[in-house]
Amino acid sequence: MKLLNNDKTILIVGLGLIGGSYARALKKLGFTVNAITRSQETVDYAMQEGIVDYATNRIEPKLIAGAKLIVFSLYPHVFMAWLKENQKYFSPGTILTDVTGVKTEVVYPVQEMLREDVEFIAAHPMAGREVYGVKNSDDAIFHGANYIVIPTEKNTPEAIALCEDLGRLLGFSTISRLTPQQHDDMIAFLSQLTHCIAVSLMTCNDSEDMQKYTGDSFRDLTRIARINDAMWSELFLMNKEALLKHMEQFEKEFHRLKDALKNDDAETMREMMRLSSERRALFDK
Amino acid sequence: MKLLNNDKTILIVGLGLIGGSYARALKKLGFTVNAITRSQETVDYAMQEGIVDYATNRIEPKLIAGAKLIVFSLYPHVFMAWLKENQKYFSPGTILTDVTGVKTEVVYPVQEMLREDVEFIAAHPMAGREVYGVKNSDDAIFHGANYIVIPTEKNTPEAIALCEDLGRLLGFSTISRLTPQQHDDMIAFLSQLTHCIAVSLMTCNDSEDMQKYTGDSFRDLTRIARINDAMWSELFLMNKEALLKHMEQFEKEFHRLKDALKNDDAETMREMMRLSSERRALFDK
Repeated sequence: MKLLNNDKTILIVGLGLIGGSYARALKKLGFTVNAITRSQETVDYAMQEGIVDYATNRIEPKLIAGAKLIVFSLYPHVFMAWLKENQKYFSPGTILTDVTGVKTEVVYPVQEMLREDVEFIAAHPMAGREVYGVKNSDDAIFHGANYIVIPTEKNTPEAIALCEDLGRLLGFSTISRLTPQQHDDMIAFLSQLTHCIAVSLMTCNDSEDMQKYTGDSFRDLTRIARINDAMWSELFLMNKEALLKHMEQFEKEFHRLKDALKNDDAETMREMMRLSSERRALFDK
Repeated sequence: MKLLNNDKTILIVGLGLIGGSYARALKKLGFTVNAITRSQETVDYAMQEGIVDYATNRIEPKLIAGAKLIVFSLYPHVFMAWLKENQKYFSPGTILTDVTGVKTEVVYPVQEMLREDVEFIAAHPMAGREVYGVKNSDDAIFHGANYIVIPTEKNTPEAIALCEDLGRLLGFSTISRLTPQQHDDMIAFLSQLTHCIAVSLMTCNDSEDMQKYTGDSFRDLTRIARINDAMWSELFLMNKEALLKHMEQFEKEFHRLKDALKNDDAETMREMMRLSSERRALFDK
């Protein structure tokens, strides 16, 4: 199945930063992009700016039935509630995908509750900004970024291929596949732990005027300390075990460095720094 | 005293990333810039590229005596050893300044051992890169960055003003004054702690292929994990008490976030995230 060979209509549910960026990219590619989103303000803005062809803040059964591909860009609990309420409107054969930041606690329950004649293939576009909402959406954030497809045994090769095509069309540079568990372990380390660190770094010192003296290193480490508290606390709790494991590993390692400093053990410090430098070199784009 | 009104010759001792960047900026401004540096390769490169007017890897007494302003860009222990050996060559009235990343354990010992007829005024240009050496020097790193002057009771208003002028001429955006203790406390938090975090984050997980999945947040948090182990371990040890204090504050706060997650305490997590977001907004350039 080629991506929407026969039907170029895509529905996006949730027109925030990521949903809006999907819409912009897909419109440029010639798709018809419709959206259902909560706020009237978003609807008005998206229509006015031509980010979508049509948007509404109501549930319009015909709009839902008319899409062969639906992208959900919602908080996990909202996503699941929406499906329960509205899956009756899907046309048979509809492919659903998402952008949710955790998978184990989303993919299995969704596939479990879903009608047999539609298919949910999970995806995680690893791109974002520290600002929110459709007004900040920008499909350039996908360029150079990673896109992960997270299939389970319930997925068909066709839906997996379609989801990978979508990532390529959106402009992502690397398309990978992971299991839900691999994804959540990876995301706990690479994304959630880094946000925990940034938040703690920002809140552990209340000295004033620090911004007057800061260099780029502090700015870089705390860029992500501007954080959507409702979304991230939900994501943390949904990935609690994996995140706690990585927080503990980090704590242990940080403590080892502290002990080395306390004991004037320059050699341990230098060994850690050399290993760190060597590993970091692999991450340069 | 205007910066080098009567004598436009500046000597730089140590032509690495920062020394080389000073040289480039000062040459563009029309100063005569000489350098003493350890390696012949650096000497050759700097002369060939016109980064300095003259460079040598020997101690040339006339070169030292001919400079009214000398900038030291050396590891702390090398800086102090150099002064002991060579201060006999300074002309009376010479102003010395530096770029060292810690101050309490540098400024007082240097001012204590120094001849009475010359003056050392400490400075910290808060700019850098993750690469080293004169070949990577670039005076653009000073633009938008902070420059801190760290006077003590031994300094004259004239030398302080000259040192501040130097920061402005180099292109720094903000020029501030701090005491050595204030500087070291600030640097322990804003710079050294962030490097400790980046190193620990990079070494706490040896999973392979992480770079395939990473988003920008992990890249940003670990940019500074490529670190000169000889220099940073020396700087950490020279600022041990202040750094340990901040490491412990960070550990405590990180642990508080971990406990909140462990206890499903979304409200504490969200409070920390909101405080973090609010504070981080102040750091935007």
